[in-house]
Amino acid sequence: MQLERIRHSDLHNKVMSAEQASLFIKDGMTVGMSGFTRAGEAKAVPRALAERVRENPMKINLMTGASLGNDLDKLLTESGALARRMPFQVDSTLRKAINNGEVMFIDQHLSETVEQLRNHQLTMPDVAVIEAVAITEEGHIVPTTSVGNSASFAIFAKEVIVEINMLHQPELEGLHDIYIPSYRPTRTPVPLVKVDDRIGSTAIPIDPAKIVGIVFTNQSDSFSTVTDPDADTASIARHLVNFFKEEVAQQRMPANLGPLQAGIGNIANAVMMGLLDSDFKDLTMYSEVLQDSTFDLIDAGKLNFASGCSIILSERCNAQVFNNLEKYRDKLVLRPQEMSNHPEIVRRLGIIAINTALEFDIYGNVNSTHVCGTKMMNGIGGSGDFARNAHVSVFVTKSIAKGGAISSVVPMVSHVDHTEHDVDILVTEQGLADLRGLAPRERAIEVIKHCVHPDYRNAMLDYYERACVRGGHTPHILEEAFSWHTRLEQQGTMKQS
Amino acid sequence: MQLERIRHSDLHNKVMSAEQASLFIKDGMTVGMSGFTRAGEAKAVPRALAERVRENPMKINLMTGASLGNDLDKLLTESGALARRMPFQVDSTLRKAINNGEVMFIDQHLSETVEQLRNHQLTMPDVAVIEAVAITEEGHIVPTTSVGNSASFAIFAKEVIVEINMLHQPELEGLHDIYIPSYRPTRTPVPLVKVDDRIGSTAIPIDPAKIVGIVFTNQSDSFSTVTDPDADTASIARHLVNFFKEEVAQQRMPANLGPLQAGIGNIANAVMMGLLDSDFKDLTMYSEVLQDSTFDLIDAGKLNFASGCSIILSERCNAQVFNNLEKYRDKLVLRPQEMSNHPEIVRRLGIIAINTALEFDIYGNVNSTHVCGTKMMNGIGGSGDFARNAHVSVFVTKSIAKGGAISSVVPMVSHVDHTEHDVDILVTEQGLADLRGLAPRERAIEVIKHCVHPDYRNAMLDYYERACVRGGHTPHILEEAFSWHTRLEQQGTMKQS
Repeated sequence: MQLERIRHSDLHNKVMSAEQASLFIKDGMTVGMSGFTRAGEAKAVPRALAERVRENPMKINLMTGASLGNDLDKLLTESGALARRMPFQVDSTLRKAINNGEVMFIDQHLSETVEQLRNHQLTMPDVAVIEAVAITEEGHIVPTTSVGNSASFAIFAKEVIVEINMLHQPELEGLHDIYIPSYRPTRTPVPLVKVDDRIGSTAIPIDPAKIVGIVFTNQSDSFSTVTDPDADTASIARHLVNFFKEEVAQQRMPANLGPLQAGIGNIANAVMMGLLDSDFKDLTMYSEVLQDSTFDLIDAGKLNFASGCSIILSERCNAQVFNNLEKYRDKLVLRPQEMSNHPEIVRRLGIIAINTALEFDIYGNVNSTHVCGTKMMNGIGGSGDFARNAHVSVFVTKSIAKGGAISSVVPMVSHVDHTEHDVDILVTEQGLADLRGLAPRERAIEVIKHCVHPDYRNAMLDYYERACVRGGHTPHILEEAFSWHTRLEQQGTMKQS
Repeated sequence: MQLERIRHSDLHNKVMSAEQASLFIKDGMTVGMSGFTRAGEAKAVPRALAERVRENPMKINLMTGASLGNDLDKLLTESGALARRMPFQVDSTLRKAINNGEVMFIDQHLSETVEQLRNHQLTMPDVAVIEAVAITEEGHIVPTTSVGNSASFAIFAKEVIVEINMLHQPELEGLHDIYIPSYRPTRTPVPLVKVDDRIGSTAIPIDPAKIVGIVFTNQSDSFSTVTDPDADTASIARHLVNFFKEEVAQQRMPANLGPLQAGIGNIANAVMMGLLDSDFKDLTMYSEVLQDSTFDLIDAGKLNFASGCSIILSERCNAQVFNNLEKYRDKLVLRPQEMSNHPEIVRRLGIIAINTALEFDIYGNVNSTHVCGTKMMNGIGGSGDFARNAHVSVFVTKSIAKGGAISSVVPMVSHVDHTEHDVDILVTEQGLADLRGLAPRERAIEVIKHCVHPDYRNAMLDYYERACVRGGHTPHILEEAFSWHTRLEQQGTMKQS
């Protein structure tokens, strides 16, 4: 039963325990693991590694697609195994270690990691650990619920460990489309021109002789913790759907809006749920991560096709999708993150990019990563890949947090991940600011009028008006620009007493 | 003689004075003009317009490729003609009006303006005013020393005014390669795979019936004010050339480095001059602007081909190039800025992007535009188009300015145009910091060690060490992060007394 999943029979003798496989990972090595938004990560070998390191201290540099599930980043951090980590994470224990300066974290645009590897600008992985549903007759690897950076990691690594997860049905095979850009200077255009184009292979092509260990597992991905829309996220969705209607009416967007990208999390999910209640149809997605809302939209007959890099679902939706794969097979594709997020494709297709801001400022700069300018939350992820070249670049957030102690709209963001040049539309539950074609002073008026919470509106207007007295293309009072943040740090609230 | 330049004879009756032609431009209109980095701008009609507006006040929205020469932005500003201006400028009078909030300036990635027009996200030009060397038999427009946004402006505008500049030799024809992307959702890949590929036409294809006026002129572009390298810019060049040598030795760059892009100005020009004295050969450029150094490198047999969007030369070099066009003809091409700066091509070709920073900070964020976070200098230009997708993204600046009163390396930049995610290499005359694959705390050490001027090094180290005590992935002391800037504003120097 298990061995049927290893169709290249020369590899049958490579089956071993996770503990044995983990021994291929040695002190100082760079390791590339599968996993993207807590989907499709190798599960047993990292866990065995963490246990081993707890007894025999050593350090590795860990690269993944994006975040790992099943508490693996937590276990690896606690064991002290992580010297360096890239390009994304969402784990609270690892986050603390990063902010303490104990783990060096390299926060990258998710489309760029393997490009930098390909050019030897980052250290190549010594070992790749990839979750698979099967190994083909040719010895190629069929990924599971994410592709992430798995293909390039496996191609670049000297040794490859495969975890075959028996929980996944063999029918997952065929879902993936593995395309790897050729080397410069003879690189050719990425031949993808429609969201549903298939341009690569269904398995990761490597020399099977590189596969040094195969481990069988039977463990689910972590389930999505996405919650149902609340009043605020439903308002955000409503503002955005109304904006889309007007864009279509003005012929600035096609009737089906064009391919949609939505970031991970509750707000972006709520926005997609908002489309469920709208009249839009024939929608398509060209996104990183496919969440519950993707499948709800497909089930409702509103979404024709979804291209992504990973699938992360709630427990309810997980059963619905993976027990009915045939129903979705011709409506889905999973690609490497280099392709799901590729600037060339994002610009060509004209994607509507919807991502979540941690905070934004009155001039349209967005902070996606750093609390009060210093403490890393998760990472920039793919938001920059999409926002820069999108047809329309949207950022969403609730206008306040922590019961009103924090305004998500600030005079100046404390860290910039997306500059004023890359942000078109800002939305909070208060309303929507359309910044396209506006100068900074015009943007400030729109943001203050439409996005700032009433509790902070007068203070923001006061800051802006006093800054204008000083002048400048982008008026600011530098000694006061972060006063809302420092008040929060010192008094626990951004509100002036 | 003049009429020979209008080969579509139906248009012979459209010849008129600049004053007459300027009457097509009416109050409230959006006008698209040729001109990029003070090269190839329409010269007579804007001047006539400024004179007219001085008598009869009216306002227009002016779009160009980039900056205009011959003091046209100054004249138009002084006349009060400008309500809005995009996407770039370099004029001190206009700059003052922008910073006073009198002219609304929209500072854009230079590859994006016509994309936003194409999608009706910006107001379409009513009239286009384009400098040409000739009009073809088909009534198509042959540009002069820049292409900029001229092609799309002429295609989108309802009425087109052509200025035929008799100073330019007819031999300019054939230099240009006009490629316009098709409309979504049926857009195909840009078919350019080598710097010297020609993928379009040599003239701007429009319906000649749209040409409402033709004006003859005989006036030179403004000459480049680029100066010879000084000790500091020569040091910057030396650091960068040494870095390139090491990259080639480590096989991270090809022997000819790959296509080079260099921003406008003295420092980038000095870097290119530094290559003149190096052993590198078979160089190529895929850049925005071609300056003196481009032609010196061609003359020296070191540069095989240069693709750009405009040519701006010193008086000396101007005669050398335009009197010997045959010598350079098969080594040059001028493209629309949408193509010279296209992210798709930048990523495909693997460009080495070299741009000038106004200031950068210890974590690798770059400010290209705003003095003390508020006052616009010129604009982001194409630096973002190149830096984001470059093979290696380099930013250069002298470590100090104003006789040492300003440190160009600061604790936190006062405005962010290029985020930490998009910056690989920082160079001052002090040295070079290689930030690739480093976490923020590691980057800070490299920048302080290699880039900061000795006068500021201890103060910077002190800031960084005290910030680290507070912790965070990117340590900062928010209430002090701009103290160097506020000291400059209040005391005229960033130095602590």
